[in-house]
Amino acid sequence: MKINKDYQNLKDSYLFSMIAKKVKEFSEAHADKKIIRLGIGDVTRPLVPSVITALTNAVADMGKSETFKGYGEEQGYGFLRTAIKGYYLSKNVALSEDEIFISDGAKSDIANILDIFDKGNTVLIPDPVYPAYVDTNVMSGRKIVYMNGNEANGFLPMPDKKIKADIIYLCSPNNPTGAVYTKAQLKEWVDYAINNQAIILFDSAYEAFISDKSLPSSIFEIEGAKECAIEFCSLSKTAGFTGTRCGYTVVAKELLREGQSINKMWLRRQTTKFNGVPYIVQKGAEAVFSAEGQKEIGENIAYYKENARIICEALGRMGIKYFGGENAPYVWLKCGMDSWEFFDKVLHKAQVVGTPGAGFGKMGEGYFRLSAFGGRENTIEAMERMRGVLRE
Amino acid sequence: MKINKDYQNLKDSYLFSMIAKKVKEFSEAHADKKIIRLGIGDVTRPLVPSVITALTNAVADMGKSETFKGYGEEQGYGFLRTAIKGYYLSKNVALSEDEIFISDGAKSDIANILDIFDKGNTVLIPDPVYPAYVDTNVMSGRKIVYMNGNEANGFLPMPDKKIKADIIYLCSPNNPTGAVYTKAQLKEWVDYAINNQAIILFDSAYEAFISDKSLPSSIFEIEGAKECAIEFCSLSKTAGFTGTRCGYTVVAKELLREGQSINKMWLRRQTTKFNGVPYIVQKGAEAVFSAEGQKEIGENIAYYKENARIICEALGRMGIKYFGGENAPYVWLKCGMDSWEFFDKVLHKAQVVGTPGAGFGKMGEGYFRLSAFGGRENTIEAMERMRGVLRE
Repeated sequence: MKINKDYQNLKDSYLFSMIAKKVKEFSEAHADKKIIRLGIGDVTRPLVPSVITALTNAVADMGKSETFKGYGEEQGYGFLRTAIKGYYLSKNVALSEDEIFISDGAKSDIANILDIFDKGNTVLIPDPVYPAYVDTNVMSGRKIVYMNGNEANGFLPMPDKKIKADIIYLCSPNNPTGAVYTKAQLKEWVDYAINNQAIILFDSAYEAFISDKSLPSSIFEIEGAKECAIEFCSLSKTAGFTGTRCGYTVVAKELLREGQSINKMWLRRQTTKFNGVPYIVQKGAEAVFSAEGQKEIGENIAYYKENARIICEALGRMGIKYFGGENAPYVWLKCGMDSWEFFDKVLHKAQVVGTPGAGFGKMGEGYFRLSAFGGRENTIEAMERMRGVLRE
Repeated sequence: MKINKDYQNLKDSYLFSMIAKKVKEFSEAHADKKIIRLGIGDVTRPLVPSVITALTNAVADMGKSETFKGYGEEQGYGFLRTAIKGYYLSKNVALSEDEIFISDGAKSDIANILDIFDKGNTVLIPDPVYPAYVDTNVMSGRKIVYMNGNEANGFLPMPDKKIKADIIYLCSPNNPTGAVYTKAQLKEWVDYAINNQAIILFDSAYEAFISDKSLPSSIFEIEGAKECAIEFCSLSKTAGFTGTRCGYTVVAKELLREGQSINKMWLRRQTTKFNGVPYIVQKGAEAVFSAEGQKEIGENIAYYKENARIICEALGRMGIKYFGGENAPYVWLKCGMDSWEFFDKVLHKAQVVGTPGAGFGKMGEGYFRLSAFGGRENTIEAMERMRGVLRE
């Protein structure tokens, strides 16, 4: 028995455990101080009423013989795929139901999709980045090339024709920087991918936070994208589903490589290694796409976006340079010092917890992520405290 | 971009689609005939009252800020892992909570566990068998060696010292044959695995159907198993969770290979590529392990087992040789003809649908699987019809 040796090349992901350790030490030493957490990327507002009603009704269905549901299709119920098809149509993206795969979240699918690609492919990953893109490729021993996000490119790296990549990760709106690609920029990526016969893995988990209608909220708004991109989306941030678990992956039938349909390969992967999302959860997800559901989640998104605006405004008044926060729930600020030093400073002096940029890659050093997913009062208080500390 | 070429070695799994096609053709030609389905392995009885209550309460939790749940630990909530630990203690198996991983079903975990093992391992798979064991290994290009189940060994193949295998699949109670390994037989497998430094992937999805208390319902009842086995279990058949999706995987800390902790590798895989089971579903699963839940699911299992008894008794009266059905929800009968020929015969003459054994591997040819998961009246009627046809 040989184990997968590539796992030994994984670096210990100590970012969030280190944050937890530092916060624990501080709070034990200062039990009287109230800590405000703007670090985690988790939502705080409850599921909206129309989702709760749908979930409640679906639970009742499961308790009666006539309406009980056993195995569903691994790729999801037709009612939910139809609802998502309608959502894409509202963006002027026409899909068929069998191009939409219901998942238990973007994280699973972004990792599992690699199963259908050869190990020999070269992977292009932005830095800073959501750490799972890197780790999942380290686990399978693929060659990783990084592309740097920095202030000069607005943390939106563009294609470099000298680099030959096969699998390209793009996340827009971006975690952690909050930056959003324009249509023209994504068109360059689509052209690059087609020229290189590469595939773009497009993470659109934060698409619902885009207010500027000129910005693309799906890569399929770009001509040619169906031939070179797979889109991963999630209800986690859109509808507060981080603990309810539902997302969707779109693989168009136009996407072929080496003569094979990637849609068919993914269907084969999912029907063999996955058993679908709970019926109850799929009914809750369907309600997200109803008129009432869209209105209700819109209010939650507006709430979080107002938090982001408050954070940005406060940083502006402090004279701190920042990125994101306008079409994204994350604000990425320039520390003016080492990112862990900044973390310690705001924890100890303001009792505010954020995320050090260094945890997202070497290009994140010197930056700090604040999340808009907290409560309103806490967000306001956190920014007032930071202002007191950082103007010193 | 190169695709994973191993996918091209997959055989089209036409078993269930072929069954669906044949049934459709028949029912279109004979709209007046009532077809009874004893083919699928899906449950038909609704979720039990205590699970429905727990699910309903958990949905309500998600609608209120104070009780809302975002991300949970990928490996599952402590409340559920504690409940499962208690369930194992009732079998005299002592586990710690961090040896138990909550999953969205045994199918996912049995497939995904392969991620942590090298591609060069040789895999030993029984025949006949649940097709996913084979397909998941074909997808990663592993060498597969089959071990034959037959009447002589009661469809319970035993270790062959001449064969050097690294990964061994055992399913007991077995799908499709309903056969169950004894403790002495599993001890031979454990000894073989330890001698070969192999790992047994033990699928115990049907453990709740074991009535004979001398038979092991967990491989961890066998001394040494913690050092060589991983157990996959599911609430699908135990508690009717096929559409609700919850299972669990047990990896003991004693399981080391090449000096690495398999428990730690699996934790790393799950925290990187999985985001946990919905909170709502985990609360429903917890209720399964309550005293009331165990009583209620016990009644459902007894209902299905009575169906199995009715099937076995009818086959006995018809003089048809069969296996399983006593400690398992499946009855495996000898056709006396080609298994698809038998399928056609009972469909056309008795309007009963079963599963041809050939669909589970070459050793399944000449056999036929009937499932006890139907309704009582349908089961009785199906057997009466089969008796009328097969005595001809």
